[in-house]
Amino acid sequence: MKYLYSIILTGLIIFNSFETRAEDGYRLWLRYDVIPDSKVLKSYNKQIKGLIVEGDSPVIRAAKNELEKGLEGLLGRSIPAMSSVSKKGVVIAGTPSGSQVIGSLKLQDKLSGLGPEGYIIVNTRYRNKKVIVIAANNDAGVMYGIFNFLRLLQTNQPIGSLSISDVPKINIRLLNHWDNLDRSVERGYAGLSLWDWQSLPGQIDERYTDYARANASVGINGTVLTNVNANALILTKDYLEKVAALAGVFRSYGIKVYLTARFSAPVEIGKLKTADPLDPDVIKWWKNKVDEIYSYIPDFGGFVVKANSEGQPGPQEYKRNHADGANTLADAVAPHGGIIMWRAFVYDNNVPDDRAKQAYNEFVPLDGKFRKNVIIQVKNGPIDFQPREPFHPLFGAMPATPLMPELQITQEYLGSSTHLVYLAPLFEECLKSDTYAKGKGSLVARVIDGSLENHSLTAIAGVANTGDVRNWTGHPIAQSNWYAYGRLAWDPYLSSEKIADEWIRMTFSNDPATVNKIAGIMLGSREAAVKYMTHLGLHHIMYEGHHYGPGPWVSRGRQDWTSVYYHKADEKGIGFNRTSSGSNAVSQYFPTVRDLYENRESCPENLLLWFHHIPWDYRMKSGKSLWDELCFMYHEGVKTVQQMQDQWESLRDLIDSDRFESVKSLLVKQERDSKIWRDGCILYFQTFSKRPLPRELEKPEHDLNYYKNHKYTDIPGIR
Amino acid sequence: MKYLYSIILTGLIIFNSFETRAEDGYRLWLRYDVIPDSKVLKSYNKQIKGLIVEGDSPVIRAAKNELEKGLEGLLGRSIPAMSSVSKKGVVIAGTPSGSQVIGSLKLQDKLSGLGPEGYIIVNTRYRNKKVIVIAANNDAGVMYGIFNFLRLLQTNQPIGSLSISDVPKINIRLLNHWDNLDRSVERGYAGLSLWDWQSLPGQIDERYTDYARANASVGINGTVLTNVNANALILTKDYLEKVAALAGVFRSYGIKVYLTARFSAPVEIGKLKTADPLDPDVIKWWKNKVDEIYSYIPDFGGFVVKANSEGQPGPQEYKRNHADGANTLADAVAPHGGIIMWRAFVYDNNVPDDRAKQAYNEFVPLDGKFRKNVIIQVKNGPIDFQPREPFHPLFGAMPATPLMPELQITQEYLGSSTHLVYLAPLFEECLKSDTYAKGKGSLVARVIDGSLENHSLTAIAGVANTGDVRNWTGHPIAQSNWYAYGRLAWDPYLSSEKIADEWIRMTFSNDPATVNKIAGIMLGSREAAVKYMTHLGLHHIMYEGHHYGPGPWVSRGRQDWTSVYYHKADEKGIGFNRTSSGSNAVSQYFPTVRDLYENRESCPENLLLWFHHIPWDYRMKSGKSLWDELCFMYHEGVKTVQQMQDQWESLRDLIDSDRFESVKSLLVKQERDSKIWRDGCILYFQTFSKRPLPRELEKPEHDLNYYKNHKYTDIPGIR
Repeated sequence: MKYLYSIILTGLIIFNSFETRAEDGYRLWLRYDVIPDSKVLKSYNKQIKGLIVEGDSPVIRAAKNELEKGLEGLLGRSIPAMSSVSKKGVVIAGTPSGSQVIGSLKLQDKLSGLGPEGYIIVNTRYRNKKVIVIAANNDAGVMYGIFNFLRLLQTNQPIGSLSISDVPKINIRLLNHWDNLDRSVERGYAGLSLWDWQSLPGQIDERYTDYARANASVGINGTVLTNVNANALILTKDYLEKVAALAGVFRSYGIKVYLTARFSAPVEIGKLKTADPLDPDVIKWWKNKVDEIYSYIPDFGGFVVKANSEGQPGPQEYKRNHADGANTLADAVAPHGGIIMWRAFVYDNNVPDDRAKQAYNEFVPLDGKFRKNVIIQVKNGPIDFQPREPFHPLFGAMPATPLMPELQITQEYLGSSTHLVYLAPLFEECLKSDTYAKGKGSLVARVIDGSLENHSLTAIAGVANTGDVRNWTGHPIAQSNWYAYGRLAWDPYLSSEKIADEWIRMTFSNDPATVNKIAGIMLGSREAAVKYMTHLGLHHIMYEGHHYGPGPWVSRGRQDWTSVYYHKADEKGIGFNRTSSGSNAVSQYFPTVRDLYENRESCPENLLLWFHHIPWDYRMKSGKSLWDELCFMYHEGVKTVQQMQDQWESLRDLIDSDRFESVKSLLVKQERDSKIWRDGCILYFQTFSKRPLPRELEKPEHDLNYYKNHKYTDIPGIR
Repeated sequence: MKYLYSIILTGLIIFNSFETRAEDGYRLWLRYDVIPDSKVLKSYNKQIKGLIVEGDSPVIRAAKNELEKGLEGLLGRSIPAMSSVSKKGVVIAGTPSGSQVIGSLKLQDKLSGLGPEGYIIVNTRYRNKKVIVIAANNDAGVMYGIFNFLRLLQTNQPIGSLSISDVPKINIRLLNHWDNLDRSVERGYAGLSLWDWQSLPGQIDERYTDYARANASVGINGTVLTNVNANALILTKDYLEKVAALAGVFRSYGIKVYLTARFSAPVEIGKLKTADPLDPDVIKWWKNKVDEIYSYIPDFGGFVVKANSEGQPGPQEYKRNHADGANTLADAVAPHGGIIMWRAFVYDNNVPDDRAKQAYNEFVPLDGKFRKNVIIQVKNGPIDFQPREPFHPLFGAMPATPLMPELQITQEYLGSSTHLVYLAPLFEECLKSDTYAKGKGSLVARVIDGSLENHSLTAIAGVANTGDVRNWTGHPIAQSNWYAYGRLAWDPYLSSEKIADEWIRMTFSNDPATVNKIAGIMLGSREAAVKYMTHLGLHHIMYEGHHYGPGPWVSRGRQDWTSVYYHKADEKGIGFNRTSSGSNAVSQYFPTVRDLYENRESCPENLLLWFHHIPWDYRMKSGKSLWDELCFMYHEGVKTVQQMQDQWESLRDLIDSDRFESVKSLLVKQERDSKIWRDGCILYFQTFSKRPLPRELEKPEHDLNYYKNHKYTDIPGIR
């Protein structure tokens, strides 16, 4: 092997003289390098001698190719594809109908109830020879099984007594790309859009395949290609041909393509006088347009629609409601099996008493008024992807309507691609929140997986953090948020720890010390960000426009776009009173939850200022006054980032230098900017509290004006 | 070798499972793959046995590394670095002072007059052993010599009797990057800026080194990092640290860093009340700012300034002239050896009688009024990087002032990165134009290389076509424009044919058939673009905003930004009368040239409508009427693109499939859009000529309205 290696290296030098950087992150978690642990490698090589993947659909071909490539990489030798089980140690994958061997194994009972995407992985015997069987009802299941099997090897799990049976809990698992047609990405921090509209449909970049492989490996089965702030041009012939080309690549990995529909498209590209969803010509236009789309993309998934929100056109301009708008589109896609994902992220242009209440107020009355193929897309919290929000009151409040959560993988409010923030705990917090809609245990997860109200149309969306930078996500650790979202979309009951463990082993190493150090950094990172940005329930106090730094002082322009509207700091105290004595947003939650939030003693302190206006001297559970607690929290946030730096430093000799140095330098920026958050916010709130900074805490480096006028030079993304 | 290869390939599969695409274009023309011609390879291996590169400056180290990497790649084996000439066939590189061996060779005579960047490559004997010597006065010269030596091998030239002596004709050879701080690139069609401001200075991407290597290999020795439409923030501490980090990488390749200076910076970041260049505080501010810059970048090159042009701030706002503005900056950088490049691309906001005359009118009176370290940057033509323009009348008209040409490598008006257009013929046309400033032979090249008026400050700038897409330039063939610009900057007397031949051999193959086919396509491509866009002297009739498609009908808004202002088509004829009976722009040229252009019989037909308003029935030299000629020209342009497609098709088995397919699909778009140019323009001009399309020519597919309303879906670049 050694000799082989040295020659291979020479090879790499000769052929890649221009590419000396080995660890550029492009391979994500699908690395397939030879397993370094010789004991593990030896045992795998004893148990895996060949493979049989029967069937020849595009999906099966792609899955087989993945298995061959993966095994060759991980085991350091090519594993022969066999036509029959001529010896022990064969990996057999397929469906009963597509594979004779699988068919003969009588797996019907095991496979019943696994649906189209579930699969089993079991050790068994075939004609008395030990084999590993990956079986499913459909080709997609076989593919997911193969990716899971490879993950077992990548994470060095024993494969001697496998009896895995796995089914996705949610049927439609989507990435939402806020990508514009000029390839800029709204809230994108990882370069340009992956979709190179200019070179499509003629040129098919390898990267499209690698994107599909990465998604398929975590179970993502749909992608919305375009920004929710939509451009009608995507629905024109030239673009549909490009979309069809992408759909052709993704189809082999079980991924469907979806688009965003601009509600005014009938006027803008259809040359109609109106976009009124009840106007016969409009109804006809959408029907024809959809038929045209399906003529290009027979398995087109459907539309996401942002209407009457932040200036986007919508049915209300024609005195129609969201159901009227959604249903017209739903009727157009229904004959083709398509769906409409209608966003509940709406607020009209007249400033409301409390923006947090608007989605609930507008949508609950419409419960039951939507077509069967409409699902309402609800952000995890009632405001907008803040570092911490309570779960959205709509979950559980529309029992007759399927709801899907919209999570944000791209870090719009969490340090873009500069801050190391592992988001699984944020996602998990929402999914495991108990709505009490049907009593204790009515978790958000059970609302959206359909089990609570028995919906068969189930979906979940994550706003992608991908772009065309070489490592896909900018921050090397941000790859884990793409991975974690996918895993939670497949199984919303998974734990952040389990997901982090998998990802680290696949992406960095199986060495326990390395895994523990990196996991430690990741698992504490989101709470750290909350502490140095918006703890105790503070929210929406960020810098205007880029949302990267602090801006609690922002007070100009539309009220509910300012910060002062949300923190309501004054000489008495700070916080937004959403109790019955205030905006009464608490009333939108089910009684148990409402009472919990209504009462400032029972309200979780990490949401206190979300629901209550609290006096500066209020005693917190720590015994500190609110003001002191607030100051200490900000300092703890920064301290954690400093500890993350020490922990990371201890990885120097455990991982490759490329990713080590990259994360190290990003942590330096994160520390610098966490201090700007801390000191900017403390100094600003101090102008109301009129209280001194607790003696133990280090003083801010600059005065308030410095922070107000600070210009950022490090924020990625086109603005 | 075969065996080695197969293993290497396995290696590549195992390690690059995510990177199956071999020919992604990232390596540009510095490929260093093993020479396939076994005869050539054998003879090189006989003549090259070892290398000695003495000296250990960063530049020498980089050059030595390049030589080792290049030889190892090209010869398929590692060439030992030796400490003494122990056998024949040693390649020896260095300076007399830095290398003992070179010193002992008595090369003083040969090296005298080669300056700091010139070099020699000669076969000679050292202690009776045959050796190849690469020698120069300075390390930079050694580096350029090494790159040239590698080029000789890449292009399979004989190396048995070398006696090369090479000196750059122009001292400062720059790329101008119109890159913004958010990484968008003005008129950029190859992704985001190469400068990842967000990750700088902490992270140094390998790509910065590869960018520097590519530039050094063609002799480019300076780079202006920022857009001429400047952002003052680049001059603040945070950014200067980032700039310094880039300068640190580029320095090892003999490349200096320059920046654009926003004239109003003293107000915007200096908090002064004025930016008046004669105000003492402003003078002081610039001096201090420049001292600060040099504290970060000791070899900082200087500033490019766009002032009082297209809304950019400038001295005229304070009733000062361009010399006042330039000199204040010049005095600030002078103590550090810096220069100011002041752009002559100016036109005030009051529409002039003829925009083509403005630069000349504003600058000629200032001749001799600029400091010694100021050079005026003049675009190749008097309007703005059109497919064809006459040379700029300023060349030769300011004998007391150094002038530098500004060429555009990025294809703002030539099909962005979609059209295959080899620009060397366009550059060559300008450089070899005879100004007659001092009688026959007063070529533009001689104005700018200082030989005509004996200036020692000489420079040239090319607006870069690079971005962060994997292949650097978007269109694979557009790499040749970067290469060609660099070669012409080094020697403005080189021919387009010679440069194309070099580039094709280095980038594709030395196979004569392949070279001839690709050269044929490239060399005809610029004239083809002129024909289907703006032949016979037409100019500035492009689509508003993106400048990609035709827009001869553009008539709204500021007159000299419309198309009708430039083509002046009416029922009588078409063209801009710039003769003595018109705007008299011809009077800005020296008599011989003026008379040539003044007279419509002697005026070159490819510039006819630039200088004359010509009746539709005017007899052209072809015997056709102007109207017929115009129609035929447009059709010839499209026909050439169709021939280019056939020629390219014949390369299918001669080059790799990746680049073959990529160019093939781009040519399909180019043909499609050349027809839109052709038919849109013909139909529009026909509304004035009222004459039929010549019978032989195929009719337009659509009516004029279709072309006026055509929406483009393929244009790269952020808008």
